[in-house]
Amino acid sequence: MTTTKLKIGVAGLGRMGKRHALNYLQAVPRAELVAVSTPDASEREWAREHLAGVAVYEDFRELVAHPGLEAVCVASATAVHAEQSMLAIDAGKHVLCEKPLATTASVSQSVVDAAARRPDLKVMCGFSRRFDESYRDAHAKAQAGLIGRPSVFRSQTCDMLDPSGFFVAYAEFSGGIFVDCSIHDVDLALWFFGEDTDEKVRSVSAVGITAVEPDLRKFNDRDNAVGLIEFTDGRIAHLYCSRMMAAGQEDTTEIIGTKGKLAVNSQPTANLVRLHEPGGIRHEVPQTYWDRFKNAFTTEAVDFVDCCLDDKPVPVKLETAVAAVRIAAALQESMISGNKIWFNKGERTDHAQK
Amino acid sequence: MTTTKLKIGVAGLGRMGKRHALNYLQAVPRAELVAVSTPDASEREWAREHLAGVAVYEDFRELVAHPGLEAVCVASATAVHAEQSMLAIDAGKHVLCEKPLATTASVSQSVVDAAARRPDLKVMCGFSRRFDESYRDAHAKAQAGLIGRPSVFRSQTCDMLDPSGFFVAYAEFSGGIFVDCSIHDVDLALWFFGEDTDEKVRSVSAVGITAVEPDLRKFNDRDNAVGLIEFTDGRIAHLYCSRMMAAGQEDTTEIIGTKGKLAVNSQPTANLVRLHEPGGIRHEVPQTYWDRFKNAFTTEAVDFVDCCLDDKPVPVKLETAVAAVRIAAALQESMISGNKIWFNKGERTDHAQK
Amino acid sequence: MTTTKLKIGVAGLGRMGKRHALNYLQAVPRAELVAVSTPDASEREWAREHLAGVAVYEDFRELVAHPGLEAVCVASATAVHAEQSMLAIDAGKHVLCEKPLATTASVSQSVVDAAARRPDLKVMCGFSRRFDESYRDAHAKAQAGLIGRPSVFRSQTCDMLDPSGFFVAYAEFSGGIFVDCSIHDVDLALWFFGEDTDEKVRSVSAVGITAVEPDLRKFNDRDNAVGLIEFTDGRIAHLYCSRMMAAGQEDTTEIIGTKGKLAVNSQPTANLVRLHEPGGIRHEVPQTYWDRFKNAFTTEAVDFVDCCLDDKPVPVKLETAVAAVRIAAALQESMISGNKIWFNKGERTDHAQK
Amino acid sequence: MTTTKLKIGVAGLGRMGKRHALNYLQAVPRAELVAVSTPDASEREWAREHLAGVAVYEDFRELVAHPGLEAVCVASATAVHAEQSMLAIDAGKHVLCEKPLATTASVSQSVVDAAARRPDLKVMCGFSRRFDESYRDAHAKAQAGLIGRPSVFRSQTCDMLDPSGFFVAYAEFSGGIFVDCSIHDVDLALWFFGEDTDEKVRSVSAVGITAVEPDLRKFNDRDNAVGLIEFTDGRIAHLYCSRMMAAGQEDTTEIIGTKGKLAVNSQPTANLVRLHEPGGIRHEVPQTYWDRFKNAFTTEAVDFVDCCLDDKPVPVKLETAVAAVRIAAALQESMISGNKIWFNKGERTDHAQK
Repeated sequence: MTTTKLKIGVAGLGRMGKRHALNYLQAVPRAELVAVSTPDASEREWAREHLAGVAVYEDFRELVAHPGLEAVCVASATAVHAEQSMLAIDAGKHVLCEKPLATTASVSQSVVDAAARRPDLKVMCGFSRRFDESYRDAHAKAQAGLIGRPSVFRSQTCDMLDPSGFFVAYAEFSGGIFVDCSIHDVDLALWFFGEDTDEKVRSVSAVGITAVEPDLRKFNDRDNAVGLIEFTDGRIAHLYCSRMMAAGQEDTTEIIGTKGKLAVNSQPTANLVRLHEPGGIRHEVPQTYWDRFKNAFTTEAVDFVDCCLDDKPVPVKLETAVAAVRIAAALQESMISGNKIWFNKGERTDHAQK
Repeated sequence: MTTTKLKIGVAGLGRMGKRHALNYLQAVPRAELVAVSTPDASEREWAREHLAGVAVYEDFRELVAHPGLEAVCVASATAVHAEQSMLAIDAGKHVLCEKPLATTASVSQSVVDAAARRPDLKVMCGFSRRFDESYRDAHAKAQAGLIGRPSVFRSQTCDMLDPSGFFVAYAEFSGGIFVDCSIHDVDLALWFFGEDTDEKVRSVSAVGITAVEPDLRKFNDRDNAVGLIEFTDGRIAHLYCSRMMAAGQEDTTEIIGTKGKLAVNSQPTANLVRLHEPGGIRHEVPQTYWDRFKNAFTTEAVDFVDCCLDDKPVPVKLETAVAAVRIAAALQESMISGNKIWFNKGERTDHAQK
Repeated sequence: MTTTKLKIGVAGLGRMGKRHALNYLQAVPRAELVAVSTPDASEREWAREHLAGVAVYEDFRELVAHPGLEAVCVASATAVHAEQSMLAIDAGKHVLCEKPLATTASVSQSVVDAAARRPDLKVMCGFSRRFDESYRDAHAKAQAGLIGRPSVFRSQTCDMLDPSGFFVAYAEFSGGIFVDCSIHDVDLALWFFGEDTDEKVRSVSAVGITAVEPDLRKFNDRDNAVGLIEFTDGRIAHLYCSRMMAAGQEDTTEIIGTKGKLAVNSQPTANLVRLHEPGGIRHEVPQTYWDRFKNAFTTEAVDFVDCCLDDKPVPVKLETAVAAVRIAAALQESMISGNKIWFNKGERTDHAQK
Repeated sequence: MTTTKLKIGVAGLGRMGKRHALNYLQAVPRAELVAVSTPDASEREWAREHLAGVAVYEDFRELVAHPGLEAVCVASATAVHAEQSMLAIDAGKHVLCEKPLATTASVSQSVVDAAARRPDLKVMCGFSRRFDESYRDAHAKAQAGLIGRPSVFRSQTCDMLDPSGFFVAYAEFSGGIFVDCSIHDVDLALWFFGEDTDEKVRSVSAVGITAVEPDLRKFNDRDNAVGLIEFTDGRIAHLYCSRMMAAGQEDTTEIIGTKGKLAVNSQPTANLVRLHEPGGIRHEVPQTYWDRFKNAFTTEAVDFVDCCLDDKPVPVKLETAVAAVRIAAALQESMISGNKIWFNKGERTDHAQK
């Protein structure tokens, strides 16, 4: 094992970008955070205060041009994920891009195409849950045959209610709740069903409501939605996404097989403390997605850096990220139109595929 | 309170009928089980052995004619639920009929019509889960406003895998998995959403698979299915039913409101024992629906008997049973046809209702 | 099976007596509650209102003389348990006596002696937890060898804090917290270790505090205490009793064997409901011992009645009740004196027994 | 915040030493692991393979003399903890010493004395559980008054059964099960009761057995033991330690206060996965102490390094480590002698202290 460190930069210093940057600084021993970029002045101010010794840029192109830079973590707004990823690839940098690559499959595909032109680079979309130790344990158990054939997949990504209404403005560019939240669950469904593509998707359908934030409708979005994905080989995924959880982040998954079932996080919990008080026994729940998956983000970063330094294939195929966006965007469309959407080998069709 | 006991008979002595009969004999102090009926000779043999002092008939009409009989618990095959209920009503007996009243809404409605002609009688469809203390506690908490407005309802009725394949033959007359299993969840959705009818149902859609028992297809049934119910007032119910659980009966419900969430049975458990052994910590799960809800069946019987003796209205409106069958049958149809089904104020329609 | 019912009377109508009486009335089909007695006028008033058709007496001797009475459930104050039990035995009645038989081993022994003179009668001390389905399941699993040799036993009987201070006055005659509460745990330790007597007890020691109710000291009692019981065959029991639980009744037991561990009620819970609310996920806890064990009390009554009617031996040997009192009283003494108490084959001794 | 890193060395590369070394290498960004030492040749071989760029010494004195070394983590055998700590202190190095400082209070005190002569140095005993996020959360909640006055403390350190019998040989020098395992629980009791010393200990008593490994008796040790600590201000701690857990590491703690209770790890669990399989629902348990507390060890190292670099007081007073050893050693003595041991303001006494 070499002792050389991977020189990495982080693009975007919003909620997630800050955490990615600190993560590389503090918890990824084989990486050296050398530069960050953000168009936001206050975020650059934060960087100068918290990221000692790290170059701070306004423009992403400056970041990419940072001397010696080898890799970029794209943690900026979803709207620029694809563009920044392609710029970095074309400049010969390894790329870890936060999910989703883009809000449409076609734009996502352009990142895949760019990566295909540079097979020497590592390009990965950050599906953080695949790096969570509980999901990994569940996947290993499924692979070991403990539940027979995985047949029904239920999963949810449910955020704690943010009464500030932040998520309304955010909805304008997020691609909608299925693309923003459920894409994780779509990716997990593909992973547990052993698929890298969406070729076996037969239909998707979805319904959604605005229970707490009717203003979401102006961006064609909802605050609670349920979706069904039907596969041609006799499997089903059903997904729930929400912005309305009172107690905290509730990301639960079940994989039901012909001989058993695996459940991940049936009872969300922040830690091992239980408070016995008048009224009963209470425990806390992680408040944010990051709180729940912070160790997974670290593992993701560590694994990505290992792949870059040791020239190993990345653990999540980039094509899967396109498939996940295509499915999630179809769910979003079905939710808005009210129509069931049929597919035939990855292509939209008017009729049911056998 | 009178000390007179209600003279009751039980029709049908299959799996559930036996338990109902023993329940009245042993756990319902204000009832006196006076007679049972079943066309099955071995079941009558069982009755003579286990139901000391109780008259045993082959023909349901004999049961109804039993001297002094005041009430009937219809626990026979689903196919004769409606016919027997109407016969009993017309003979002036109170009726507690196992769910569903029938496998179609129109036949179910004929029971409602019969009951309407005899307002002096108590006629109730046995939605057992409404009598379970956990569901009652959850409903009381929802009524008390603890979760704000109930908006998203998720519920499942999942049976333990019966490797004998009993459920294949059973499917011929059960009405299908949505009518047989999910009808409980449909009823609960109406209960928690404060509805007695299906007038606010906007659409239903469902998908299903045969993961373990392909022979179910000959009866147009499936062994795992997921359904969505959309309501016109901005609410959603999503349901899962299965015959494939490895560990036991898994009947879980969540009611998600604008200010909180109630979960019932997130982690199924048979009792309070945990076995720490090499490999981890293990606990058992109820093996059958009856195991899970035996106390609820007792409460249901006790409450029904109280209503008869004390002339109180029954706690579950009979109309609701028709609405539940209509919704469940539509889910079953959608699962088979692949089409989304639209409703407008309780009537089928071709287009989306606003 | 005979259809004759056992004519039973209940002595005492305090907190527990009322529940026992209603239990026989409503949930024990082979018993007929024919009479009750209590010296308290308001309790007799309650009886006339709630126990329709049941004779109500002031004097226990009248109860025993009730025509046709066959059995008595002694649920009066602990101070008269032994006297009433012996009176009933001498009058030829079966007896189910609430625990403890008495606050001292010698008085308890006099009940055993009385019972020995009437081997035709069923006499049992009501150790309710042995009739709880979770404890029974755990015991069956231990008997089946699932945990190897049970070696360390931890158990607690912890009441919810009653801010009225009721338990202070109660302490004057209860025998103290070890005799009143931990006697359940002592009995369970004997049961799980396969002992009917205290012959293998080597030493007991205990410490106690008054964390919330210093007035208990005037009756030589404490509100929280911990005790150790050492057995000569290499086993240990450690017990905790408390009057100070905030959330509710917390009765937890662990049996640790050489190959595994059984835990009963590690996480107390009233039912299957979980409330997700701001601040976390909360569930309720049974508020009283009766709430936790109401089904066990019913099973206890049903089993006792079966033993009487079918002439079967009672499931709990009466001698065990004496052993349990002897151990519990020694723990109480050790807690007050601060001294460790040594035993040799059931007799007090000054030195350690090998 | 300076970007200078603390140059640290790790002494001892046994089970724990290896993990400490890797921890500093991979997860403590402000530390630079510069050297390790171990008398064991195979451990030095391991170091050369896994600790690239780190100097490897046979002799602890060489480690201390490593150029530029600023701090030492003493993770060697308990028998040399104190000697190595004092050597390092006298050489002007900061010291983080694994618990216990020594197996006797007097030797432990000599480390405190050495540290007192060098107030410029940071010297801390590594009570890892104080750095676990669940314990920290529980402690913060107790400090915030959520449970009233902490009054009864129950805690256990229970290892998974190691059928190789490793722990028998280990017992020769470990100080015994109370000193080796329960010292964590003793430290936690002092922490939650707000004490830095053992001045308020009134008595200790303990019993122990050899349920699986009778050979432990030759080293005056046991494989399961229970101990009581009585405090003069009306508080109790009761502790359980074991080498016999079947499922894994079970370290559970309860702090019972006058207004509530905090429980940490009532249901041990390795992660958030539950496997539903025939026979029930199963989850895994951490297999070792390190598995359970690996994040706590990282936090401990990070915090210690911060204290050294930023010249802040260490979070655990060194005197507490002496008090914990004194109490644990007294429990061990009581377990062997069978006698209760009385204290008066930290001194042994023949009689009960008021």
